[in-house]
Amino acid sequence: MTARRWTLDDDRCFSPEPRVRDRARALYAEVRDLPLVCPHGHVAPALLADPDARFPNPADLLIKPDHYVFRMLYSQGVPMEALGVPTRDGTEVESDPRAIWRTFCAHFHLFRGTPTGLWLKAELIELFGVEEVPSEATADRIYDRIQERLDAPEFRPRALFERFGIETLATTDQAGDDLAPHAAMREAGLPVVPTFRPDGVLHLASEDWRAQLDALEARSDVQITGLDALFEALARRRATFRELGATATDHASLTPEIEPLPTHEAEALLQKALSGGAPTPEEDHRFHAHALLRMAEMAREDGMTMQIHVGSFRNHHRRIHRRFGLDKGADMPIAVDWTRGLRTLLNEHGHDPDFRLVLFTLDEATYARELAPLAGHYPALRLGAPWWFFDSVLGMDRYLDRVTETAGIYNLAGFNDDTRAFPSIPTRHDVWRRTACDWLARTIERGLIDAEDGPEMARWLAYDAAKAAYRV
Amino acid sequence: MTARRWTLDDDRCFSPEPRVRDRARALYAEVRDLPLVCPHGHVAPALLADPDARFPNPADLLIKPDHYVFRMLYSQGVPMEALGVPTRDGTEVESDPRAIWRTFCAHFHLFRGTPTGLWLKAELIELFGVEEVPSEATADRIYDRIQERLDAPEFRPRALFERFGIETLATTDQAGDDLAPHAAMREAGLPVVPTFRPDGVLHLASEDWRAQLDALEARSDVQITGLDALFEALARRRATFRELGATATDHASLTPEIEPLPTHEAEALLQKALSGGAPTPEEDHRFHAHALLRMAEMAREDGMTMQIHVGSFRNHHRRIHRRFGLDKGADMPIAVDWTRGLRTLLNEHGHDPDFRLVLFTLDEATYARELAPLAGHYPALRLGAPWWFFDSVLGMDRYLDRVTETAGIYNLAGFNDDTRAFPSIPTRHDVWRRTACDWLARTIERGLIDAEDGPEMARWLAYDAAKAAYRV
Amino acid sequence: MTARRWTLDDDRCFSPEPRVRDRARALYAEVRDLPLVCPHGHVAPALLADPDARFPNPADLLIKPDHYVFRMLYSQGVPMEALGVPTRDGTEVESDPRAIWRTFCAHFHLFRGTPTGLWLKAELIELFGVEEVPSEATADRIYDRIQERLDAPEFRPRALFERFGIETLATTDQAGDDLAPHAAMREAGLPVVPTFRPDGVLHLASEDWRAQLDALEARSDVQITGLDALFEALARRRATFRELGATATDHASLTPEIEPLPTHEAEALLQKALSGGAPTPEEDHRFHAHALLRMAEMAREDGMTMQIHVGSFRNHHRRIHRRFGLDKGADMPIAVDWTRGLRTLLNEHGHDPDFRLVLFTLDEATYARELAPLAGHYPALRLGAPWWFFDSVLGMDRYLDRVTETAGIYNLAGFNDDTRAFPSIPTRHDVWRRTACDWLARTIERGLIDAEDGPEMARWLAYDAAKAAYRV
Repeated sequence: MTARRWTLDDDRCFSPEPRVRDRARALYAEVRDLPLVCPHGHVAPALLADPDARFPNPADLLIKPDHYVFRMLYSQGVPMEALGVPTRDGTEVESDPRAIWRTFCAHFHLFRGTPTGLWLKAELIELFGVEEVPSEATADRIYDRIQERLDAPEFRPRALFERFGIETLATTDQAGDDLAPHAAMREAGLPVVPTFRPDGVLHLASEDWRAQLDALEARSDVQITGLDALFEALARRRATFRELGATATDHASLTPEIEPLPTHEAEALLQKALSGGAPTPEEDHRFHAHALLRMAEMAREDGMTMQIHVGSFRNHHRRIHRRFGLDKGADMPIAVDWTRGLRTLLNEHGHDPDFRLVLFTLDEATYARELAPLAGHYPALRLGAPWWFFDSVLGMDRYLDRVTETAGIYNLAGFNDDTRAFPSIPTRHDVWRRTACDWLARTIERGLIDAEDGPEMARWLAYDAAKAAYRV
Repeated sequence: MTARRWTLDDDRCFSPEPRVRDRARALYAEVRDLPLVCPHGHVAPALLADPDARFPNPADLLIKPDHYVFRMLYSQGVPMEALGVPTRDGTEVESDPRAIWRTFCAHFHLFRGTPTGLWLKAELIELFGVEEVPSEATADRIYDRIQERLDAPEFRPRALFERFGIETLATTDQAGDDLAPHAAMREAGLPVVPTFRPDGVLHLASEDWRAQLDALEARSDVQITGLDALFEALARRRATFRELGATATDHASLTPEIEPLPTHEAEALLQKALSGGAPTPEEDHRFHAHALLRMAEMAREDGMTMQIHVGSFRNHHRRIHRRFGLDKGADMPIAVDWTRGLRTLLNEHGHDPDFRLVLFTLDEATYARELAPLAGHYPALRLGAPWWFFDSVLGMDRYLDRVTETAGIYNLAGFNDDTRAFPSIPTRHDVWRRTACDWLARTIERGLIDAEDGPEMARWLAYDAAKAAYRV
Repeated sequence: MTARRWTLDDDRCFSPEPRVRDRARALYAEVRDLPLVCPHGHVAPALLADPDARFPNPADLLIKPDHYVFRMLYSQGVPMEALGVPTRDGTEVESDPRAIWRTFCAHFHLFRGTPTGLWLKAELIELFGVEEVPSEATADRIYDRIQERLDAPEFRPRALFERFGIETLATTDQAGDDLAPHAAMREAGLPVVPTFRPDGVLHLASEDWRAQLDALEARSDVQITGLDALFEALARRRATFRELGATATDHASLTPEIEPLPTHEAEALLQKALSGGAPTPEEDHRFHAHALLRMAEMAREDGMTMQIHVGSFRNHHRRIHRRFGLDKGADMPIAVDWTRGLRTLLNEHGHDPDFRLVLFTLDEATYARELAPLAGHYPALRLGAPWWFFDSVLGMDRYLDRVTETAGIYNLAGFNDDTRAFPSIPTRHDVWRRTACDWLARTIERGLIDAEDGPEMARWLAYDAAKAAYRV
């Protein structure tokens, strides 16, 4: 059997119709090499702060930390233990990276037609020079090839950061996190900034709420005995984040129902948590919603862009949560009601063109029904890129099809890669750039956009929009 | 710099694939010049009733009255005051039409990829002979060009009405409105008829409920002291509307939950309003729902087509509402439940093929899930054209894709332009005709519709369906 | 007037773009003649068990039993009585099959652009050799042509079963149904198996609950005096079904909210029904949900694939229900919440790769938002084919577009025809095979799937997936 040679299609993500394809190619040629603006993601700061950091092996790089990868394998009966995903209680899991890699390669066909498959293919071929489709038969050869590259100095994270052409990258950091890595990177001139994500202390029912609060107390030098102290501590940390270049905050909420509480009620909820009570999910939501309105006020003052991610029902599978912890692929979307939920926040702050609020949804039905009409009215609002499950070619198509007619493209916040998987950054941006250019090409060829406007619009979607939304 | 010449693409709205495009062109050629049937819209009757009426200037014609236009500019930080949108309390706003026009032109790029952009382009080029893209640099020249045309007799509303080839046009009129303009037009042989929209008196919490009721009393010559009198007054007005050619009524409801009340309860709600009480939104909805069922009964008797528009959360932005009033771009869609909400009404009247009920939604998720299955069963039901935010090329594609397989095209109510912007009428119909022909062409070329049936189906969608649904 | 010759497009369901079409053709050529796997449908077992059974006439074959057909005609004012749909109380309806057929043909244009139209066209041309479009003028000739064929021995159901290339077909059978026809078919070597559908006894508010329970008692030889006896009877029947080759159960629920009850509460509900009380719809749902969890336990034990169909609001139109009974075209979809509704069931059983749960929805908004994320995580889960109103070319497109990126194709359960209309089986599978190949071709030509993987994926979607999901 002759091994099939694995190659990347230069025209991937482009429509097959020749006129559309030609125009998509031309638009893409102008944005392909623009620097990458990465205003929202989950790369570990330590990885970049330490100039000597390296990626240990293919499994630790590509499998273990990527819930997109192991959820698909798990869905087809592969135990997460076999993929080396660490357990909370330290129960042993597969520790041989090569064994993990073989299991992954034996199931690589599962990723056909998925964005994960598209990203992995581009990474393996472009970054690591792989020339064979992963399978049981090819697993070892591919492993060795990747390992060889990872051992080379030009594959250290810092080296890749430069090779990737990253203009700026934001990490995501808890309110009490140590920002020493960011300070070091600032010192070294590396354009990596933190993002302020106080979810851990504002969701009173967070698993590690007390630990997060302790960290916040320590970093802010404020003893948090009540509501005023909490917000004082958060204000100080916002200032520190900003000094290190942060331009944004990030917040996750199950639903967009964001209403204020009477102060005494918010205070009572906080006191309950402080005294070791166990706030209910509903109390958690009410307190968090109240706090979000304070965060919006602070954002108007300090100019940080406020991001809200809504609609993920976390830890749907208790067994997985109990055994492996958070973010292990068992978060599931729900329907949301932005129109009524966000009314209070938007009525208080949405008219302010200096306030910047970026929204992310997992309920695509709200793109055209709610988000585009809201963004096409409120000056503060920008629509975040298609998120998570929708960070995909068809997900982007649906997003652009559904939001643009009502909100235009200038109310969009551009792209962000939102990734934990550092080597996937370029290909994720590339998929967006290709898909956006193809969408523009289709729209132009259908006579709905002037051809002359195409290049400027492509550049906006690929690069300018993110800088504008995040004030980078 | 050579100015770029601005031209209309003859093939706009058509798919680029050559076979599809050829067939779309051929289908379109047969419907392009059919007369315009406009069974639902918001043109001011006075504009057409007065043969000497004229449009004062470009800003008053195209900017100030069009919330599609100023909401987009507002969303990008342009104050509505700068666009001359009048305030409720008379606070001064920009009054120089040329200054307003310049602001608009400087932001014209915001409309790229939007239906508003498509309509404006067609109007500016086809109707006003503009040859340059609006921008700061070209604003004054374009202003002068349009003004020159507006000053000419052949650009008076009446002249345009004929040039547009309007076969019949329905305005939208409150229950207590003076229909003298319609009588005059009837006298003059102008095919303009009223539509009966009693929302103002049936929504007990309407801002100007008392004034609307007074007007209804005066016009109907019925003193409205209770429920029976109210419906008697409405019945009389329906008769008057019908005498002037009306064939339809129109009703807006936040949700489709339409249930009857015990008579004494409906009476009590009305009495509360009559005595100056302030009905709650919930009371408003319950009374209105009850009244809708009465309206359905009357419609079965007098044969008027009943239209219900559902899912618009009005005046979302209180600041805008307070300052500028109703219909200023801050109405936002919500999800709705037609299946359960409309069950009572459909069970009582839906089996009657002589009753005609046309539904409009802002929740596209209900097209395939609820509206098409309902219309594919109940004889009384017809599906209204894609409405408001979805009166767009992609909005029409989604509509046809989602309703036709289940409801067929003969349960559709065709197109209506629903516009306040008189000069946009032809281009709105043209976009529908083009897009419907393209959709047919795609479906035929995919082997799903017999090519021989195309022309008849195109004509149905472009012209016959609206006449049938509204019994014009 | 020359009659137009009616022909089938060999390329139906394929995209017009030439490269896509060529690839779709090539993929389709490899799956077109694969045997048909029919794991879920509503063919009457008696039809196949009796080797001498025949179809009486065109109206009894194609019109009367097919709610897809008569609902569309009813929606346009044709009384169901005129189509021979039998009434519950025996009120006379049209009994002349030729008169029924004429009414159908006179309205055949209503099916333009619908899947029913596509199926009927393929059946009429391919199976019956019809060469004219049905219309008033052609009705009689077509009737005679079909009747001629139906009278021939090679058009008996058994003969067609073989001609269609059906590898295995599952019927749908109530818990208390007589399985003698299945035993006879097993004896005769005909691959027709039952499916266990206990809805009639588990929905306590079913119209004929008592009769269904009596039948279950009789068949299982268990006197059902309480909960334990009920589940014992069901367990025995499951065993009997399995002996006759059943590999699946089927369950319908209005919503996916499936929560257990305390045993005493479930017992009390059952006792209420047993003693002749009238359980409310809400009690019906709670008991059924409780029972579904027991069914899931049994399924893990006996290995039967569990199917759940959710979101159909049955008998929306009371008038039709009262007069004509169940399944008469007045069932309407509603929005559903799988994520929260199914959490309990999935937490208890979803991690088990040996348990097989197949879900069907009428709320397409849940494809990408809920179903694909759930199926892309839980090992037990497979997504059922696009169901009912969405068993259509565009319905399949939307399904594949929305589920594949997140769930991949290996978490799909393939196709099932779900039909009562025996002669439509081949064309329904054919539409799926064509549409799936076209979807693959488009995805490949867009550079998102490796061309080399196409044939295997086409075969999976056309054939292997259904066998895997149903363990055929």
